[in-house]
Amino acid sequence: MSDKARILCGSSLAQAQQVNIIQAVTAIVSKGYRPPCLTVILAGDNPASAIYVKAKQSACESVGIHSKVWRFAKTASQAELMDAVHRLNQDQEIDGILIQLPLPNGLDADALLDTLDPSKDVDGLTPYNLGCLLRRNPRFIPCTPLGCLDLIHQSTQDISGKRAVVFGRSLLIGRPMALLLEQYGATVTVVHSKSRNVPEISRQADIVVAAIGQPGLITADYIKTGAIVIDVGITRMGNSIVGDVHESVSNIAGWLTPVPGGVGPMTITKLLSNTVKAAQDRIDHMEKRTSPAC
Amino acid sequence: MSDKARILCGSSLAQAQQVNIIQAVTAIVSKGYRPPCLTVILAGDNPASAIYVKAKQSACESVGIHSKVWRFAKTASQAELMDAVHRLNQDQEIDGILIQLPLPNGLDADALLDTLDPSKDVDGLTPYNLGCLLRRNPRFIPCTPLGCLDLIHQSTQDISGKRAVVFGRSLLIGRPMALLLEQYGATVTVVHSKSRNVPEISRQADIVVAAIGQPGLITADYIKTGAIVIDVGITRMGNSIVGDVHESVSNIAGWLTPVPGGVGPMTITKLLSNTVKAAQDRIDHMEKRTSPAC
Repeated sequence: MSDKARILCGSSLAQAQQVNIIQAVTAIVSKGYRPPCLTVILAGDNPASAIYVKAKQSACESVGIHSKVWRFAKTASQAELMDAVHRLNQDQEIDGILIQLPLPNGLDADALLDTLDPSKDVDGLTPYNLGCLLRRNPRFIPCTPLGCLDLIHQSTQDISGKRAVVFGRSLLIGRPMALLLEQYGATVTVVHSKSRNVPEISRQADIVVAAIGQPGLITADYIKTGAIVIDVGITRMGNSIVGDVHESVSNIAGWLTPVPGGVGPMTITKLLSNTVKAAQDRIDHMEKRTSPAC
Repeated sequence: MSDKARILCGSSLAQAQQVNIIQAVTAIVSKGYRPPCLTVILAGDNPASAIYVKAKQSACESVGIHSKVWRFAKTASQAELMDAVHRLNQDQEIDGILIQLPLPNGLDADALLDTLDPSKDVDGLTPYNLGCLLRRNPRFIPCTPLGCLDLIHQSTQDISGKRAVVFGRSLLIGRPMALLLEQYGATVTVVHSKSRNVPEISRQADIVVAAIGQPGLITADYIKTGAIVIDVGITRMGNSIVGDVHESVSNIAGWLTPVPGGVGPMTITKLLSNTVKAAQDRIDHMEKRTSPAC
Protein backbone atom coordinates (compact mmCIF):
# COMPACT_ATOMS: atom_id res chain seq x y z
CA MET A 1 0.00 0.00 0.00
CA SER A 2 1.25 3.43 -0.79
CA ASP A 3 -1.36 5.22 1.32
CA LYS A 4 0.03 6.57 4.53
CA ALA A 5 -1.98 6.56 7.77
CA ARG A 6 -3.67 9.83 8.68
CA ILE A 7 -1.96 11.44 11.65
CA LEU A 8 -3.95 11.89 14.87
CA CYS A 9 -2.00 14.90 16.07
CA GLY A 10 -2.01 15.22 19.85
CA SER A 11 -0.19 18.55 19.81
CA SER A 12 -2.85 20.35 17.79
CA LEU A 13 -5.76 18.68 19.61
CA ALA A 14 -4.15 19.59 22.94
CA GLN A 15 -3.73 23.18 21.78
CA ALA A 16 -7.38 23.41 20.77
CA GLN A 17 -8.50 21.97 24.10
CA GLN A 18 -6.23 24.32 26.01
CA VAL A 19 -8.06 27.28 24.46
CA ASN A 20 -11.23 25.99 26.14
CA ILE A 21 -9.34 25.45 29.39
CA ILE A 22 -8.09 29.05 29.34
CA GLN A 23 -11.68 30.20 28.84
CA ALA A 24 -12.84 28.10 31.79
CA VAL A 25 -10.07 29.47 34.02
CA THR A 26 -10.89 33.03 32.92
CA ALA A 27 -14.56 32.48 33.74
CA ILE A 28 -13.64 31.29 37.25
CA VAL A 29 -11.40 34.28 37.88
CA SER A 30 -13.89 36.76 36.42
CA LYS A 31 -16.47 35.50 38.94
CA GLY A 32 -14.10 36.66 41.67
CA TYR A 33 -12.61 33.29 42.61
CA ARG A 34 -8.91 32.53 42.78
CA PRO A 35 -7.48 30.57 39.82
CA PRO A 36 -7.46 26.74 40.02
CA CYS A 37 -4.42 25.41 41.86
CA LEU A 38 -2.56 22.12 41.45
CA THR A 39 0.05 20.80 43.88
CA VAL A 40 2.44 18.05 42.88
CA ILE A 41 4.14 15.85 45.46
CA LEU A 42 7.56 14.92 44.13
CA ALA A 43 9.72 12.58 46.20
CA GLY A 44 13.24 11.51 45.27
CA ASP A 45 15.42 12.44 42.32
CA ASN A 46 14.17 10.33 39.42
CA PRO A 47 15.30 12.41 36.39
CA ALA A 48 12.27 11.44 34.25
CA SER A 49 9.89 12.47 37.06
CA ALA A 50 11.67 15.83 37.31
CA ILE A 51 11.16 16.40 33.58
CA TYR A 52 7.46 15.39 33.71
CA VAL A 53 6.77 17.62 36.71
CA LYS A 54 8.45 20.57 35.01
CA ALA A 55 6.33 20.00 31.88
CA LYS A 56 3.17 19.87 34.01
CA GLN A 57 4.07 23.12 35.77
CA SER A 58 4.81 24.85 32.51
CA ALA A 59 1.48 23.67 31.03
CA CYS A 60 -0.38 24.91 34.11
CA GLU A 61 1.24 28.29 33.77
CA SER A 62 0.30 28.56 30.09
CA VAL A 63 -3.43 28.22 30.88
CA GLY A 64 -3.52 30.26 34.09
CA ILE A 65 -3.61 27.40 36.59
CA HIS A 66 -1.43 27.98 39.64
CA SER A 67 0.91 25.14 40.47
CA LYS A 68 3.19 24.23 43.32
CA VAL A 69 5.63 21.41 43.85
CA TRP A 70 6.21 19.95 47.29
CA ARG A 71 9.61 18.29 47.07
CA PHE A 72 10.82 15.51 49.36
CA ALA A 73 14.18 13.78 49.59
CA LYS A 74 14.32 10.15 48.45
CA THR A 75 14.88 9.31 52.13
CA ALA A 76 11.52 10.86 53.10
CA SER A 77 9.40 8.62 55.33
CA GLN A 78 5.91 7.34 54.58
CA ALA A 79 4.65 9.38 57.57
CA GLU A 80 6.07 12.61 56.14
CA LEU A 81 4.31 12.06 52.83
CA MET A 82 1.06 11.02 54.54
CA ASP A 83 1.21 14.20 56.56
CA ALA A 84 1.75 16.25 53.40
CA VAL A 85 -1.30 14.66 51.74
CA HIS A 86 -3.40 15.32 54.86
CA ARG A 87 -2.39 18.96 54.89
CA LEU A 88 -3.11 19.39 51.17
CA ASN A 89 -6.49 17.67 51.59
CA GLN A 90 -7.43 20.28 54.21
CA ASP A 91 -6.04 23.27 52.33
CA GLN A 92 -8.92 25.22 50.76
CA GLU A 93 -6.46 26.96 48.40
CA ILE A 94 -5.62 23.68 46.62
CA ASP A 95 -7.97 22.07 44.07
CA GLY A 96 -5.85 19.24 42.71
CA ILE A 97 -3.18 17.02 44.25
CA LEU A 98 -0.94 14.83 42.13
CA ILE A 99 1.46 12.29 43.61
CA GLN A 100 4.21 11.88 41.02
CA LEU A 101 4.90 8.17 40.50
CA PRO A 102 6.99 6.12 40.88
CA LEU A 103 7.82 6.85 44.51
CA PRO A 104 11.32 6.03 45.82
CA ASN A 105 11.83 2.46 47.02
CA GLY A 106 10.33 1.63 50.38
CA LEU A 107 7.40 4.03 50.08
CA ASP A 108 3.87 2.64 49.68
CA ALA A 109 2.07 4.47 46.87
CA ASP A 110 -1.25 2.67 47.47
CA ALA A 111 -1.34 3.65 51.14
CA LEU A 112 -0.56 7.24 50.17
CA LEU A 113 -3.28 7.30 47.50
CA ASP A 114 -5.70 5.87 50.10
CA THR A 115 -5.31 9.05 52.14
CA LEU A 116 -5.84 11.41 49.19
CA ASP A 117 -9.20 13.22 49.09
CA PRO A 118 -10.97 11.81 45.97
CA SER A 119 -12.37 15.26 45.19
CA LYS A 120 -8.79 16.51 44.70
CA ASP A 121 -7.50 13.36 42.94
CA VAL A 122 -6.98 14.87 39.48
CA ASP A 123 -4.95 11.84 38.37
CA GLY A 124 -7.96 9.55 39.06
CA LEU A 125 -5.86 6.99 40.95
CA THR A 126 -7.53 6.79 44.37
CA PRO A 127 -9.48 3.58 44.92
CA TYR A 128 -12.73 5.57 45.17
CA ASN A 129 -12.24 7.18 41.76
CA LEU A 130 -11.05 3.93 40.18
CA GLY A 131 -14.16 2.22 41.58
CA CYS A 132 -16.39 4.92 40.12
CA LEU A 133 -14.73 4.35 36.74
CA LEU A 134 -15.46 0.62 37.06
CA ARG A 135 -19.10 1.30 37.86
CA ARG A 136 -19.33 3.89 35.06
CA ASN A 137 -19.96 7.11 36.90
CA PRO A 138 -16.39 8.39 37.02
CA ARG A 139 -15.50 11.72 38.56
CA PHE A 140 -11.82 11.84 37.57
CA ILE A 141 -10.45 9.48 34.92
CA PRO A 142 -6.69 8.80 34.65
CA CYS A 143 -5.25 11.36 32.25
CA THR A 144 -3.49 9.19 29.67
CA PRO A 145 -6.42 6.89 28.75
CA LEU A 146 -8.72 9.93 28.76
CA GLY A 147 -6.40 11.64 26.27
CA CYS A 148 -6.19 8.48 24.13
CA LEU A 149 -9.99 8.38 23.96
CA ASP A 150 -10.09 11.91 22.54
CA LEU A 151 -7.47 10.98 19.95
CA ILE A 152 -9.54 7.96 18.89
CA HIS A 153 -12.60 10.21 18.60
CA GLN A 154 -10.53 12.51 16.34
CA SER A 155 -10.66 9.78 13.70
CA THR A 156 -14.45 10.38 13.63
CA GLN A 157 -14.92 6.60 13.61
CA ASP A 158 -17.67 5.16 15.78
CA ILE A 159 -16.17 3.07 18.60
CA SER A 160 -19.32 1.04 19.29
CA GLY A 161 -19.14 -2.53 17.97
CA LYS A 162 -15.46 -2.19 17.01
CA ARG A 163 -12.79 -4.66 18.10
CA ALA A 164 -10.12 -3.04 20.27
CA VAL A 165 -6.85 -4.46 21.56
CA VAL A 166 -5.03 -2.77 24.44
CA PHE A 167 -1.37 -3.72 24.90
CA GLY A 168 -0.46 -3.61 28.58
CA ARG A 169 -2.53 -4.03 31.76
CA SER A 170 -1.13 -1.22 33.91
CA LEU A 171 -3.31 0.66 36.38
CA LEU A 172 -2.32 4.00 34.87
CA ILE A 173 -3.10 3.12 31.27
CA GLY A 174 -4.10 -0.38 30.14
CA ARG A 175 -6.88 -1.27 32.57
CA PRO A 176 -8.70 2.10 32.58
CA MET A 177 -8.26 2.32 28.78
CA ALA A 178 -9.98 -1.05 28.36
CA LEU A 179 -12.87 0.05 30.61
CA LEU A 180 -13.32 3.31 28.68
CA LEU A 181 -13.33 1.59 25.29
CA GLU A 182 -15.79 -1.00 26.58
CA GLN A 183 -18.02 1.76 27.95
CA TYR A 184 -18.12 3.24 24.44
CA GLY A 185 -19.25 -0.12 23.06
CA ALA A 186 -15.99 -1.64 21.82
CA THR A 187 -15.26 -5.35 22.21
CA VAL A 188 -11.98 -5.11 24.08
CA THR A 189 -9.13 -7.58 24.52
CA VAL A 190 -6.22 -6.77 26.82
CA VAL A 191 -2.92 -8.42 25.85
CA HIS A 192 0.11 -8.54 28.12
CA SER A 193 3.30 -10.39 28.94
CA LYS A 194 1.52 -13.76 29.40
CA SER A 195 -0.50 -13.53 26.17
CA ARG A 196 0.11 -15.92 23.28
CA ASN A 197 -0.43 -15.46 19.51
CA VAL A 198 -0.38 -11.73 20.04
CA PRO A 199 0.05 -10.61 16.40
CA GLU A 200 -2.94 -12.75 15.41
CA ILE A 201 -5.12 -11.23 18.17
CA SER A 202 -3.91 -7.73 17.37
CA ARG A 203 -4.66 -8.11 13.65
CA GLN A 204 -8.36 -8.55 14.52
CA ALA A 205 -8.51 -5.09 16.06
CA ASP A 206 -10.01 -1.95 14.52
CA ILE A 207 -8.45 0.04 17.37
CA VAL A 208 -5.02 -0.69 18.87
CA VAL A 209 -3.67 1.09 21.95
CA ALA A 210 -0.03 0.23 22.67
CA ALA A 211 1.28 1.01 26.17
CA ILE A 212 4.13 -1.38 26.85
CA GLY A 213 7.28 0.73 26.57
CA GLN A 214 9.03 -1.58 24.09
CA PRO A 215 10.33 0.53 21.21
CA GLY A 216 9.01 -0.52 17.82
CA LEU A 217 7.54 -3.84 19.02
CA ILE A 218 4.25 -3.29 17.19
CA THR A 219 5.18 -3.87 13.54
CA ALA A 220 2.92 -3.89 10.47
CA ASP A 221 2.42 -7.60 11.09
CA TYR A 222 0.29 -6.73 14.16
CA ILE A 223 -2.05 -4.32 12.41
CA LYS A 224 -5.20 -4.72 10.32
CA THR A 225 -5.42 -2.49 7.25
CA GLY A 226 -7.12 0.77 8.14
CA ALA A 227 -6.94 0.35 11.93
CA ILE A 228 -6.68 3.23 14.39
CA VAL A 229 -3.34 2.93 16.20
CA ILE A 230 -2.62 4.89 19.40
CA ASP A 231 1.02 4.80 20.49
CA VAL A 232 1.35 5.49 24.23
CA GLY A 233 4.83 4.01 24.61
CA ILE A 234 7.61 6.42 25.36
CA THR A 235 11.21 5.24 25.46
CA ARG A 236 14.12 7.62 25.47
CA MET A 237 16.86 6.45 23.07
CA GLY A 238 19.79 8.82 23.03
CA ASN A 239 18.36 12.21 22.14
CA SER A 240 15.11 10.97 20.69
CA ILE A 241 11.86 9.57 22.06
CA VAL A 242 10.59 6.35 20.49
CA GLY A 243 7.14 4.79 20.71
CA ASP A 244 5.96 1.17 20.84
CA VAL A 245 4.79 1.33 17.22
CA HIS A 246 7.24 0.56 14.40
CA GLU A 247 7.41 2.99 11.50
CA SER A 248 6.23 0.23 9.11
CA VAL A 249 2.75 0.56 10.67
CA SER A 250 2.21 3.92 8.99
CA ASN A 251 1.83 2.07 5.68
CA ILE A 252 -0.99 -0.14 6.92
CA ALA A 253 -2.88 1.74 9.67
CA GLY A 254 -5.72 4.10 8.79
CA TRP A 255 -4.93 6.51 11.62
CA LEU A 256 -1.82 6.78 13.76
CA THR A 257 -0.56 8.97 16.62
CA PRO A 258 2.99 10.31 16.26
CA VAL A 259 5.69 10.05 18.97
CA PRO A 260 6.39 12.69 20.14
CA GLY A 261 3.37 14.95 19.62
CA GLY A 262 0.70 12.26 20.06
CA VAL A 263 -0.46 11.00 23.43
CA GLY A 264 2.04 13.02 25.51
CA PRO A 265 0.48 16.48 25.04
CA MET A 266 -3.00 15.00 25.56
CA THR A 267 -2.01 13.49 28.93
CA ILE A 268 -0.87 16.87 30.18
CA THR A 269 -3.97 18.59 28.79
CA LYS A 270 -6.24 16.13 30.62
CA LEU A 271 -4.41 16.92 33.85
CA LEU A 272 -5.24 20.58 33.25
CA SER A 273 -8.90 19.90 32.48
CA ASN A 274 -9.23 17.60 35.51
CA THR A 275 -7.76 20.36 37.71
CA VAL A 276 -10.21 22.91 36.33
CA LYS A 277 -13.03 20.40 36.89
CA ALA A 278 -11.94 19.98 40.53
CA ALA A 279 -11.99 23.77 40.97
CA GLN A 280 -15.38 24.11 39.30
CA ASP A 281 -16.86 21.30 41.43
CA ARG A 282 -15.55 23.00 44.58
CA ILE A 283 -17.07 26.33 43.51
CA ASP A 284 -20.40 24.68 42.58
CA HIS A 285 -20.46 22.98 45.95
CA MET A 286 -19.67 26.25 47.73
CA GLU A 287 -22.29 28.25 45.81
CA LYS A 288 -24.91 25.58 46.45
CA ARG A 289 -24.13 25.69 50.15
CA THR A 290 -24.38 29.47 50.39
CA SER A 291 -27.37 30.00 48.08
CA PRO A 292 -30.55 31.14 49.89
CA ALA A 293 -33.16 28.42 50.46
CA CYS A 294 -36.15 28.58 48.10
CA MET B 1 -17.60 -36.22 19.68
CA SER B 2 -19.10 -38.68 22.06
CA ASP B 3 -17.09 -37.46 25.05
CA LYS B 4 -19.13 -35.45 27.47
CA ALA B 5 -17.72 -32.42 29.28
CA ARG B 6 -16.56 -33.02 32.84
CA ILE B 7 -18.90 -31.37 35.30
CA LEU B 8 -17.54 -28.58 37.51
CA CYS B 9 -19.96 -29.16 40.35
CA GLY B 10 -20.62 -26.00 42.35
CA SER B 11 -22.73 -27.82 44.94
CA SER B 12 -19.98 -30.17 46.03
CA LEU B 13 -17.27 -27.50 45.91
CA ALA B 14 -19.50 -25.19 47.95
CA GLN B 15 -20.10 -27.97 50.47
CA ALA B 16 -16.36 -28.59 50.83
CA GLN B 17 -15.67 -24.88 51.28
CA GLN B 18 -18.46 -24.57 53.83
CA VAL B 19 -16.70 -27.16 56.00
CA ASN B 20 -13.75 -24.75 56.18
CA ILE B 21 -16.09 -21.85 56.89
CA ILE B 22 -17.68 -23.76 59.80
CA GLN B 23 -14.19 -24.39 61.18
CA ALA B 24 -13.34 -20.70 60.91
CA VAL B 25 -16.57 -19.69 62.65
CA THR B 26 -15.93 -22.26 65.39
CA ALA B 27 -12.42 -20.92 65.88
CA ILE B 28 -13.79 -17.38 66.32
CA VAL B 29 -16.40 -18.49 68.83
CA SER B 30 -13.97 -20.71 70.75
CA LYS B 31 -11.73 -17.64 71.24
CA GLY B 32 -14.63 -16.07 73.10
CA TYR B 33 -15.90 -13.77 70.37
CA ARG B 34 -19.49 -13.62 69.14
CA PRO B 35 -20.21 -15.41 65.82
CA PRO B 36 -19.86 -13.40 62.59
CA CYS B 37 -23.01 -11.46 61.75
CA LEU B 38 -24.43 -10.43 58.37
CA THR B 39 -27.26 -7.93 57.91
CA VAL B 40 -29.16 -7.72 54.64
CA ILE B 41 -31.05 -4.58 53.65
CA LEU B 42 -34.08 -5.64 51.64
CA ALA B 43 -36.31 -2.92 50.19
CA GLY B 44 -39.49 -3.57 48.25
CA ASP B 45 -41.24 -6.80 47.33
CA ASN B 46 -39.31 -8.20 44.37
CA PRO B 47 -40.10 -11.95 44.59
CA ALA B 48 -36.69 -13.05 43.27
CA SER B 49 -34.94 -10.86 45.86
CA ALA B 50 -37.05 -12.42 48.61
CA ILE B 51 -35.98 -15.90 47.47
CA TYR B 52 -32.29 -14.94 47.27
CA VAL B 53 -32.33 -13.34 50.72
CA LYS B 54 -33.99 -16.40 52.22
CA ALA B 55 -31.33 -18.63 50.64
CA LYS B 56 -28.58 -16.40 52.03
CA GLN B 57 -30.08 -16.51 55.53
CA SER B 58 -30.43 -20.25 55.41
CA ALA B 59 -26.81 -20.65 54.27
CA CYS B 60 -25.62 -18.37 57.08
CA GLU B 61 -27.49 -20.47 59.60
CA SER B 62 -26.00 -23.71 58.31
CA VAL B 63 -22.43 -22.48 58.99
CA GLY B 64 -23.09 -20.66 62.26
CA ILE B 65 -23.12 -17.09 60.92
CA HIS B 66 -25.83 -14.92 62.48
CA SER B 67 -27.98 -13.08 60.00
CA LYS B 68 -30.60 -10.37 60.14
CA VAL B 69 -32.80 -8.79 57.51
CA TRP B 70 -33.80 -5.15 57.72
CA ARG B 71 -36.93 -4.88 55.59
CA PHE B 72 -38.20 -1.68 54.02
CA ALA B 73 -41.36 -0.98 52.05
CA LYS B 74 -40.95 -0.25 48.36
CA THR B 75 -42.03 3.30 49.21
CA ALA B 76 -39.05 3.75 51.58
CA SER B 77 -37.10 6.97 51.00
CA GLN B 78 -33.44 7.28 50.12
CA ALA B 79 -32.90 9.03 53.47
CA GLU B 80 -34.39 6.10 55.41
CA LEU B 81 -32.04 3.64 53.69
CA MET B 82 -29.04 5.95 54.11
CA ASP B 83 -29.84 6.18 57.79
CA ALA B 84 -30.05 2.38 58.04
CA VAL B 85 -26.64 2.00 56.41
CA HIS B 86 -25.15 4.62 58.75
CA ARG B 87 -26.51 2.80 61.78
CA LEU B 88 -25.23 -0.58 60.56
CA ASN B 89 -21.82 0.95 59.81
CA GLN B 90 -21.58 2.07 63.46
CA ASP B 91 -22.95 -1.14 64.97
CA GLN B 92 -20.07 -3.17 66.43
CA GLU B 93 -22.26 -6.29 66.45
CA ILE B 94 -22.46 -6.35 62.64
CA ASP B 95 -19.57 -7.59 60.46
CA GLY B 96 -21.12 -7.61 57.00
CA ILE B 97 -23.77 -5.47 55.32
CA LEU B 98 -25.39 -6.49 52.07
CA ILE B 99 -27.74 -4.23 50.12
CA GLN B 100 -29.97 -6.57 48.12
CA LEU B 101 -30.19 -5.30 44.53
CA PRO B 102 -32.10 -4.19 42.55
CA LEU B 103 -33.60 -1.46 44.75
CA PRO B 104 -37.16 -0.28 44.04
CA ASN B 105 -37.51 2.44 41.39
CA GLY B 106 -36.51 5.92 42.48
CA LEU B 107 -33.82 4.78 44.91
CA ASP B 108 -30.15 5.45 44.10
CA ALA B 109 -28.09 2.29 44.71
CA ASP B 110 -24.76 4.00 43.96
CA ALA B 111 -25.38 6.75 46.52
CA LEU B 112 -26.34 4.10 49.08
CA LEU B 113 -23.23 2.01 48.36
CA ASP B 114 -21.16 5.22 48.69
CA THR B 115 -22.20 5.42 52.36
CA LEU B 116 -21.41 1.77 53.14
CA ASP B 117 -18.29 1.16 55.24
CA PRO B 118 -15.89 -0.70 52.88
CA SER B 119 -14.75 -2.91 55.78
CA LYS B 120 -18.31 -4.28 56.03
CA ASP B 121 -18.95 -4.43 52.26
CA VAL B 122 -19.04 -8.23 51.90
CA ASP B 123 -20.52 -7.93 48.39
CA GLY B 124 -17.47 -5.95 47.23
CA LEU B 125 -19.58 -3.28 45.51
CA THR B 126 -18.50 -0.05 47.20
CA PRO B 127 -16.35 2.17 44.97
CA TYR B 128 -13.41 1.76 47.36
CA ASN B 129 -13.47 -2.04 47.11
CA LEU B 130 -14.05 -1.98 43.35
CA GLY B 131 -11.08 0.38 43.04
CA CYS B 132 -8.91 -1.97 45.11
CA LEU B 133 -9.90 -4.82 42.77
CA LEU B 134 -8.88 -2.67 39.78
CA ARG B 135 -5.51 -1.93 41.36
CA ARG B 136 -5.06 -5.59 42.37
CA ASN B 137 -5.09 -5.45 46.14
CA PRO B 138 -8.73 -6.34 46.69
CA ARG B 139 -10.20 -6.67 50.17
CA PHE B 140 -13.66 -7.96 49.19
CA ILE B 141 -14.31 -9.28 45.70
CA PRO B 142 -17.90 -9.56 44.33
CA CYS B 143 -19.17 -13.02 45.23
CA THR B 144 -20.22 -14.42 41.84
CA PRO B 145 -16.96 -13.82 39.92
CA LEU B 146 -15.03 -15.03 42.97
CA GLY B 147 -17.05 -18.26 42.93
CA CYS B 148 -16.57 -18.63 39.15
CA LEU B 149 -12.81 -18.35 39.63
CA ASP B 150 -12.83 -21.26 42.08
CA LEU B 151 -14.86 -23.35 39.63
CA ILE B 152 -12.34 -22.62 36.87
CA HIS B 153 -9.53 -23.64 39.23
CA GLN B 154 -11.41 -26.91 39.85
CA SER B 155 -10.55 -27.91 36.27
CA THR B 156 -6.88 -27.87 37.41
CA GLN B 157 -6.04 -26.04 34.18
CA ASP B 158 -3.56 -23.18 34.39
CA ILE B 159 -5.28 -19.87 33.60
CA SER B 160 -2.10 -18.00 32.68
CA GLY B 161 -1.69 -17.45 28.94
CA LYS B 162 -5.17 -18.82 28.16
CA ARG B 163 -7.72 -16.95 26.05
CA ALA B 164 -10.88 -16.11 28.00
CA VAL B 165 -14.15 -14.64 26.81
CA VAL B 166 -16.60 -13.11 29.29
CA PHE B 167 -20.17 -12.62 28.06
CA GLY B 168 -21.69 -9.54 29.69
CA ARG B 169 -20.17 -6.36 31.11
CA SER B 170 -22.19 -5.97 34.32
CA LEU B 171 -20.67 -4.49 37.45
CA LEU B 172 -21.72 -7.51 39.51
CA ILE B 173 -20.25 -10.15 37.22
CA GLY B 174 -18.72 -9.37 33.83
CA ARG B 175 -16.33 -6.55 34.63
CA PRO B 176 -14.89 -7.96 37.88
CA MET B 177 -14.69 -11.43 36.27
CA ALA B 178 -12.60 -10.01 33.42
CA LEU B 179 -10.26 -8.28 35.90
CA LEU B 180 -9.81 -11.47 37.92
CA LEU B 181 -9.06 -13.62 34.88
CA GLU B 182 -6.61 -10.99 33.64
CA GLN B 183 -4.94 -10.89 37.04
CA TYR B 184 -4.39 -14.66 36.74
CA GLY B 185 -2.70 -14.13 33.38
CA ALA B 186 -5.53 -14.83 30.93
CA THR B 187 -5.94 -12.79 27.75
CA VAL B 188 -9.49 -11.61 28.27
CA THR B 189 -12.11 -10.33 25.82
CA VAL B 190 -15.44 -9.00 27.10
CA VAL B 191 -18.33 -9.40 24.64
CA HIS B 192 -21.69 -7.66 25.06
CA SER B 193 -24.77 -6.38 23.27
CA LYS B 194 -22.76 -4.20 20.86
CA SER B 195 -20.25 -6.93 19.92
CA ARG B 196 -20.11 -8.37 16.41
CA ASN B 197 -18.98 -11.82 15.17
CA VAL B 198 -19.49 -13.14 18.67
CA PRO B 199 -19.41 -16.90 17.89
CA GLU B 200 -16.10 -16.43 16.10
CA ILE B 201 -14.60 -14.53 19.05
CA SER B 202 -15.99 -17.02 21.53
CA ARG B 203 -14.59 -20.01 19.62
CA GLN B 204 -11.06 -18.67 20.27
CA ALA B 205 -11.53 -18.98 24.02
CA ASP B 206 -10.12 -21.65 26.31
CA ILE B 207 -12.34 -20.28 29.09
CA VAL B 208 -15.88 -18.97 28.54
CA VAL B 209 -17.91 -17.27 31.28
CA ALA B 210 -21.51 -16.59 30.26
CA ALA B 211 -23.46 -14.03 32.31
CA ILE B 212 -26.13 -12.57 30.06
CA GLY B 213 -29.39 -14.14 31.23
CA GLN B 214 -30.44 -15.38 27.77
CA PRO B 215 -31.44 -19.03 28.08
CA GLY B 216 -29.48 -21.37 25.83
CA LEU B 217 -27.90 -18.59 23.74
CA ILE B 218 -24.42 -20.12 23.94
CA THR B 219 -24.65 -23.11 21.61
CA ALA B 220 -21.92 -25.56 20.57
CA ASP B 221 -21.14 -23.19 17.71
CA TYR B 222 -19.68 -20.72 20.24
CA ILE B 223 -17.33 -23.16 21.92
CA LYS B 224 -13.86 -24.49 21.15
CA THR B 225 -13.35 -28.20 21.73
CA GLY B 226 -12.15 -28.81 25.27
CA ALA B 227 -12.94 -25.31 26.61
CA ILE B 228 -13.89 -24.57 30.21
CA VAL B 229 -17.44 -23.19 30.21
CA ILE B 230 -18.90 -21.40 33.25
CA ASP B 231 -22.64 -20.77 33.06
CA VAL B 232 -23.66 -17.88 35.31
CA GLY B 233 -26.97 -17.18 33.59
CA ILE B 234 -30.09 -17.96 35.58
CA THR B 235 -33.50 -17.66 33.98
CA ARG B 236 -36.61 -19.07 35.58
CA MET B 237 -38.76 -20.88 33.00
CA GLY B 238 -41.87 -22.35 34.57
CA ASN B 239 -40.67 -24.59 37.35
CA SER B 240 -37.11 -24.94 36.14
CA ILE B 241 -34.02 -22.76 36.10
CA VAL B 242 -32.18 -22.47 32.79
CA GLY B 243 -28.67 -21.19 32.11
CA ASP B 244 -27.18 -19.23 29.21
CA VAL B 245 -25.42 -22.34 27.88
CA HIS B 246 -27.26 -24.67 25.51
CA GLU B 247 -27.18 -28.40 26.27
CA SER B 248 -25.35 -29.05 22.98
CA VAL B 249 -22.25 -27.49 24.56
CA SER B 250 -21.77 -30.51 26.83
CA ASN B 251 -20.64 -32.48 23.75
CA ILE B 252 -17.86 -30.04 22.88
CA ALA B 253 -16.67 -28.36 26.10
CA GLY B 254 -13.98 -29.98 28.23
CA TRP B 255 -15.48 -28.74 31.51
CA LEU B 256 -18.92 -27.32 32.20
CA THR B 257 -20.86 -26.01 35.19
CA PRO B 258 -24.43 -27.30 35.58
CA VAL B 259 -27.51 -25.09 36.14
CA PRO B 260 -28.66 -25.40 38.87
CA GLY B 261 -25.83 -26.61 41.08
CA GLY B 262 -23.02 -24.69 39.42
CA VAL B 263 -22.31 -21.02 40.06
CA GLY B 264 -25.33 -20.42 42.36
CA PRO B 265 -24.07 -22.34 45.41
CA MET B 266 -20.61 -20.82 44.95
CA THR B 267 -21.98 -17.27 45.00
CA ILE B 268 -23.66 -17.90 48.34
CA THR B 269 -20.56 -19.62 49.72
CA LYS B 270 -18.41 -16.64 48.81
CA LEU B 271 -20.82 -14.37 50.67
CA LEU B 272 -20.28 -16.57 53.72
CA SER B 273 -16.50 -16.56 53.39
CA ASN B 274 -16.44 -12.77 52.83
CA THR B 275 -18.53 -12.32 55.99
CA VAL B 276 -16.15 -14.50 58.01
CA LYS B 277 -13.23 -12.53 56.55
CA ALA B 278 -14.87 -9.26 57.67
CA ALA B 279 -15.28 -10.69 61.18
CA GLN B 280 -11.70 -11.98 61.28
CA ASP B 281 -10.32 -8.64 60.06
CA ARG B 282 -12.30 -6.84 62.77
CA ILE B 283 -10.96 -9.20 65.44
CA ASP B 284 -7.38 -8.90 64.13
CA HIS B 285 -7.72 -5.13 64.21
CA MET B 286 -9.11 -5.24 67.76
CA GLU B 287 -6.43 -7.63 69.04
CA LYS B 288 -3.70 -5.52 67.46
CA ARG B 289 -5.08 -2.43 69.15
CA THR B 290 -5.25 -4.01 72.58
CA SER B 291 -1.98 -5.97 72.49
CA PRO B 292 0.73 -4.61 74.82
CA ALA B 293 3.47 -2.58 73.11
CA CYS B 294 6.77 -4.43 72.67
